[in-house]
Amino acid sequence: MNAAVLDRLRTALGDRVDTTDAALEAARADRSGHASPTAPLAVVHAESTSDVQATLRIAQETGTPVVVRGAGTGLAGAAIAGTGEIVLSTLRMRRVLEIRPDDLLAVVEPGILNAELDAVLAEHGLWWPPDPASRDISTIGGNIATGAGGLLCAKYGAVRDAVLAVDLVLADGRLLHLGHRSVKGVTGLDLTSLVIGSEGRLGVIVGATLKLRRVVPGAPCTIVATFPAVRDAARGSAAVTASGAEPAIMELMDARCLAAVHALLELDPPADGVAQLTIQTDGRSAAVEAEQIAAVLRAAGGTVTVTDDPVRGEELLRIRRSMHTAMAALGTTLIEDVSVPRSALPAMFDEIARIEREYGIEIPTVAHAGDGNLHPNFIVQTPEIPARIWQAADDLFRAAMRLGGTLTGEHGIGTLKRRWLAEELGEDQWQLQRDIVRAFDPAGVLAPGRVFAHRTTEPDAAAPNNAEEPHA
Amino acid sequence: MNAAVLDRLRTALGDRVDTTDAALEAARADRSGHASPTAPLAVVHAESTSDVQATLRIAQETGTPVVVRGAGTGLAGAAIAGTGEIVLSTLRMRRVLEIRPDDLLAVVEPGILNAELDAVLAEHGLWWPPDPASRDISTIGGNIATGAGGLLCAKYGAVRDAVLAVDLVLADGRLLHLGHRSVKGVTGLDLTSLVIGSEGRLGVIVGATLKLRRVVPGAPCTIVATFPAVRDAARGSAAVTASGAEPAIMELMDARCLAAVHALLELDPPADGVAQLTIQTDGRSAAVEAEQIAAVLRAAGGTVTVTDDPVRGEELLRIRRSMHTAMAALGTTLIEDVSVPRSALPAMFDEIARIEREYGIEIPTVAHAGDGNLHPNFIVQTPEIPARIWQAADDLFRAAMRLGGTLTGEHGIGTLKRRWLAEELGEDQWQLQRDIVRAFDPAGVLAPGRVFAHRTTEPDAAAPNNAEEPHA
Repeated sequence: MNAAVLDRLRTALGDRVDTTDAALEAARADRSGHASPTAPLAVVHAESTSDVQATLRIAQETGTPVVVRGAGTGLAGAAIAGTGEIVLSTLRMRRVLEIRPDDLLAVVEPGILNAELDAVLAEHGLWWPPDPASRDISTIGGNIATGAGGLLCAKYGAVRDAVLAVDLVLADGRLLHLGHRSVKGVTGLDLTSLVIGSEGRLGVIVGATLKLRRVVPGAPCTIVATFPAVRDAARGSAAVTASGAEPAIMELMDARCLAAVHALLELDPPADGVAQLTIQTDGRSAAVEAEQIAAVLRAAGGTVTVTDDPVRGEELLRIRRSMHTAMAALGTTLIEDVSVPRSALPAMFDEIARIEREYGIEIPTVAHAGDGNLHPNFIVQTPEIPARIWQAADDLFRAAMRLGGTLTGEHGIGTLKRRWLAEELGEDQWQLQRDIVRAFDPAGVLAPGRVFAHRTTEPDAAAPNNAEEPHA
Repeated sequence: MNAAVLDRLRTALGDRVDTTDAALEAARADRSGHASPTAPLAVVHAESTSDVQATLRIAQETGTPVVVRGAGTGLAGAAIAGTGEIVLSTLRMRRVLEIRPDDLLAVVEPGILNAELDAVLAEHGLWWPPDPASRDISTIGGNIATGAGGLLCAKYGAVRDAVLAVDLVLADGRLLHLGHRSVKGVTGLDLTSLVIGSEGRLGVIVGATLKLRRVVPGAPCTIVATFPAVRDAARGSAAVTASGAEPAIMELMDARCLAAVHALLELDPPADGVAQLTIQTDGRSAAVEAEQIAAVLRAAGGTVTVTDDPVRGEELLRIRRSMHTAMAALGTTLIEDVSVPRSALPAMFDEIARIEREYGIEIPTVAHAGDGNLHPNFIVQTPEIPARIWQAADDLFRAAMRLGGTLTGEHGIGTLKRRWLAEELGEDQWQLQRDIVRAFDPAGVLAPGRVFAHRTTEPDAAAPNNAEEPHA
């Protein structure tokens, strides 16, 4: 059976069908630190929409599951592939088809990296706001498929706010053009928005029309404020939001994160327990806004430094940007991704402290405090995350939901959070969402088992192709 | 049968079931100027979510179609109801349940008017950006159901950008909580976005969590520029967008509109053929931006006036805001609503001029030039729109689509544009959208025949309940 599928793929796609050990091995993992216990059948390196269509038609006819993959930088295990699955890579589809400064839009293929596109757009004085921390290594297609966020979301929006249209190949190989090129458009259901964050379950993104902005004029101002404890820093960031200020970036690092990064960068260690806010204002009023924010933070008990030197500002932000490297140096990391209303940030940090106490573990946490998205890090010294850590994560998720928050702010459900999906959505909505997936992909070819899964599915990534529905 | 349905409704809902002639007559029409030839069965004035659920359960069990209605200000005939249909009004569900300045969100019931909510929010220094021209008379629920736009969309976004969560009662009476309260959230499929603009086909909106902004500081600056012809004005507005300026409002009135409003307001008549741009900048840099825009417009051949006096600015904007009244004074109006990429505005005005010549008619046109959304007005002296005018509208729609635009920027498909929907979406996407509707409402209880309809459906509103699928 598998041999017959491979034969058909090779006949249709030639040497774009890759079954080398290196390719199959790479497709077992993503950046979540988790891997499939087995390797997939093949990796197809699609170079065009018709390659994507040909692959899907063969998959549909042979009942072979397909997992779409960009740069493999996901943090939720959605693109982890295993036995019997075809990995459909869009990494070679990387053309910028159109840039229109007059219409503030660009049309791109899915495989281009976020930072590469940004460099091309900068030549036109333009940018695309979504800036996930992975921007140097993640693709636009992947950013759309996960509904990626980043540091600038409170002021400039997430992917949901920055995509006008998507070209989507359905599981049966048909190509749909969703959305429109105009700023406004309410013709029919908004399937473009539905595809954003759908994690490869609805179709394969082969093109996207992106909503751009002009590069913001002037240099940013950077504010660093330290607080004696993380709860004080969280209260400080909530006070900034409540004051009406609109920083472009507002990042919070707790004491453990700050200490780890200082050690990595060989800086003087911070005082014990000190947490830090790093804030940037931008635009023509950057300096005025920076002084207003500094006053709010001082009133909240912070020790505040402000600089309008962009080089110094970048140095200060580098401390925040080095977080993931610092965490990875400590062990195997499970980067969590809960999001809460901004006023609930202090309460969420209280919950994290409680979980640390109850489980006897450390949970270094960084937060996009401007939008309420926290990344608590669980760090272990084993290659797999033990069950006890998953119990602590479970406790964390429930705490976020109790505070009016959500399981995942920007990483997605993938395979790692399937177990909690129905709890947040409710059974009725969970079932409805599965029915919608079925309307797009009745045979269940695309990424079966990702996002939605049988209730019996274990929370780890060991069984990515544990499908919730049988294939033909 | 109908008597039995009425009995059940009255038993469950008492005097909230309204079968007075006045209520039934009002529910036959909306603000499109079109009306159903027959009256509906009853109007239910829901006062709570459980009223909505009770109505839908009875409808589901008896196979009775239900049309949701807010203030009835729609312009596409979606809420026009006829024989055998229950009209479910959410106009009495008008509470503001929560306002959170610290989280920049509000939770509201669907029946509150946009302008009423704005007044409440203003007390907290907050606002909700979507500002359809109907804001004084249209509900938040209706704004969400149509995906309403308005004057501020280019800078501040449409409804799609301003709703975090929706509480939705399904056709069978089950209540779902879609979305989240946090700024970020990618848990499962984004059904909140799918409901925005779904025109009553997916469920009944009984609550919404709105994403707010702080009131913009400072007074706006207003710029008025006149041009010898509409094409020049369109090129002027395109030049403003291409310059990187970000006006809050940029409105274009062609010569016929301008003359009609001047007559209505008893102002001196404008020079023959003269078209006008009315622009507002806001925020801390309003004055600087206004001077930059003025320079661009002068270079484009405009005669430009700038004022930073808010009272004078409001007087100038009043000319634009009086458009609909001026048009209504001329006869029966079909307000069209195409949207094109902003660079295509001059070409779209060329197409309108061509259609005027070919059909020997006048099409006074106003445009939200900042976002590319045009409202060409077809005016006739008969109560119904004649077939020949629909042919001209058909020509207009196809022209907008050829220019990369869309059938409807902010009014929706309703009953009036069903005929063109498949042409823009393509047959495959049209069918997929219908399948998605079916996943929400398998029995076809909600607003059957709206948006989607049999290919044989006539383009007028005479048969709103011409369903595309039979009921049980």
